[in-house]
Amino acid sequence: MNTNDFLHISRSDLSAFTHSVFISIGCSEQDAALATDVLIQADLRGIDSHGVARLSGYVRLFEKGRINTKPNIRLLRDKKSVFSLDGDAGLGLIVAPRSMEIVLEKTKLYGSSFGAVSNSNHFGIAAYHAMKALEHGFIGMAMTNASPLVAPANSKERMLGTNPICYAIPAGEELPFILDMASSAAANGKLEIAERKQIPVPAGWLETKDGKSTTDPGGLKAGGYLLPLGSDKDHGSHKGYGLSALVDILSGVLSGANFGPWVPPFVAFLPVLPDLPGKGIGHFTGAMDVDGFMDKAEFGKRMDKWIRRFKQAEPVDAHQPVLIPGEPEFRLHAERMKQGIPLIGKVAGDLKTLATTYKLDHPF
Amino acid sequence: MNTNDFLHISRSDLSAFTHSVFISIGCSEQDAALATDVLIQADLRGIDSHGVARLSGYVRLFEKGRINTKPNIRLLRDKKSVFSLDGDAGLGLIVAPRSMEIVLEKTKLYGSSFGAVSNSNHFGIAAYHAMKALEHGFIGMAMTNASPLVAPANSKERMLGTNPICYAIPAGEELPFILDMASSAAANGKLEIAERKQIPVPAGWLETKDGKSTTDPGGLKAGGYLLPLGSDKDHGSHKGYGLSALVDILSGVLSGANFGPWVPPFVAFLPVLPDLPGKGIGHFTGAMDVDGFMDKAEFGKRMDKWIRRFKQAEPVDAHQPVLIPGEPEFRLHAERMKQGIPLIGKVAGDLKTLATTYKLDHPF
Repeated sequence: MNTNDFLHISRSDLSAFTHSVFISIGCSEQDAALATDVLIQADLRGIDSHGVARLSGYVRLFEKGRINTKPNIRLLRDKKSVFSLDGDAGLGLIVAPRSMEIVLEKTKLYGSSFGAVSNSNHFGIAAYHAMKALEHGFIGMAMTNASPLVAPANSKERMLGTNPICYAIPAGEELPFILDMASSAAANGKLEIAERKQIPVPAGWLETKDGKSTTDPGGLKAGGYLLPLGSDKDHGSHKGYGLSALVDILSGVLSGANFGPWVPPFVAFLPVLPDLPGKGIGHFTGAMDVDGFMDKAEFGKRMDKWIRRFKQAEPVDAHQPVLIPGEPEFRLHAERMKQGIPLIGKVAGDLKTLATTYKLDHPF
Repeated sequence: MNTNDFLHISRSDLSAFTHSVFISIGCSEQDAALATDVLIQADLRGIDSHGVARLSGYVRLFEKGRINTKPNIRLLRDKKSVFSLDGDAGLGLIVAPRSMEIVLEKTKLYGSSFGAVSNSNHFGIAAYHAMKALEHGFIGMAMTNASPLVAPANSKERMLGTNPICYAIPAGEELPFILDMASSAAANGKLEIAERKQIPVPAGWLETKDGKSTTDPGGLKAGGYLLPLGSDKDHGSHKGYGLSALVDILSGVLSGANFGPWVPPFVAFLPVLPDLPGKGIGHFTGAMDVDGFMDKAEFGKRMDKWIRRFKQAEPVDAHQPVLIPGEPEFRLHAERMKQGIPLIGKVAGDLKTLATTYKLDHPF
């Protein structure tokens, strides 16, 4: 099979395999099921860069001793609605859901709650965690810092991750509003796709290590850096930098995790810097009870009105209507639940290698 | 005096005049002092578009009966840490500080607090409100929706305001981190400056009413619209749209205010739409107690380390070092406290007219 071809795997086959991998590296039954759910939901929602494509990366970090599959996650500090958590070097896929659980318990008690998490690892898609709040009719929020790839405005040094921000807001009859965005102009996954297809990327996504504009998607691997949302000074790169910095401070500084250039790399072959200011990577999670502001049913009606009005906003091109944040992901989710999850050959090959190493049945 | 020349007025003279205007339109002594402080702080921080330049606009809204200078601001709903407030059509300059007061009281009790505000008006700079949290060592947050000038990604219809997001985060020995940003590629004030100077603006700030790119700063007044942060699809305009939508939903939908295209215009000569879904414009305010996550002194040291490291990030141009969000405003504040506030002739003329109408002493 060509590494650029796609293979469709059913959700249940892919889940079973993923689950067996997490069990193999020492996760409990419950943790393996949870971590699997986080990754499969990413694939179902079309965020292919954050689904099973990352599985072998987690395994390699485990093999290097940088992920603890039997973490003792513990509260560091707790003051009514707010708290901090030490993830004990666990999978972010396990640690972030634990933080959201506490957030939701506390939101029931206090109307809002925020938890900062240190000593964690990559948590998958932010939307998975924020969307947990929707089950209670709450507004959910999740952020994380990430290994440095983005330079601040004015700089050519990798200082920030693509630090995503996610808010999930319930509606009435309409689908919820799910904003889940990297704070860089483009996420790393988009560069990888362009590299695979051997096509240039727009100017304004990245620069070379010398601070020159480039459209070569390989420019990041060659030592360059991604640009913050806004891309350049004229178009507000200081705003994208500011948002990314905000995520880094709430997730990293406030939690006791590492921050800025010290955030440990996700890839096992890159070394962790010496003299770290904290532990692991950091997340920031939160929720607010709609009912503390307004009757829930009334809020649902108002959200429906917002969503319907925005869908009717006059389009520039009649064939490209205005989308509600989260709408494309809900569409893909429905599609992939039926048709299975498309895996690119390179990823399928990677998973096959994992299956061989850990002597596992596989559907590839 | 030429309308494009600058006049330097001392802070105390400008404050005294501004205060007398608020008294003239019926504000209490206390409210006039507060509203004056909000405007003067904007001018001191260099956000000239949001300082006394807006004073005559507030007065015109009052004259049209759209601002109530004796508001009965009341709690609509209250659930421990979260609440909503009806501003009774008061000046946002008065209503938002009242919301922050409640937020700060509640944060002391619960560790975090969020308040959504309806039936308000333009609240000045978001940073004024968010920074109130710093006096308690808390992290502060303020947002507001605003009259529609920005089109969502894919659309050519004005649906959103320049909806600012502000976070104020305390540090130790360093100055606090203050992110205060419009969620559009460029704020309206920047267009006005370019128009005054008769220079083109960068492509990617606005488009004509037919959805065409333009560099004419007069394009907005000619019926065009501003673009969200990210400017175009390739550079993440769906993210700027998503952020602006988030601000609109938290400030407008959740509070009971108007939202989207229904947000009442700030300028008195434009009509309010019929069949409004809510009352006035909306704000969203909040705070979190650092001490609920981590020892405050420890957090201060970590913030100092973050700030110092980012200032040392390798610059593209050695003459343009990396700035910390809020740094340029602190610098201007120190400068203007000494040298006075520069008022452009057009604004000074405007204020002089106000002085004549209301028979007030003035320093212009």
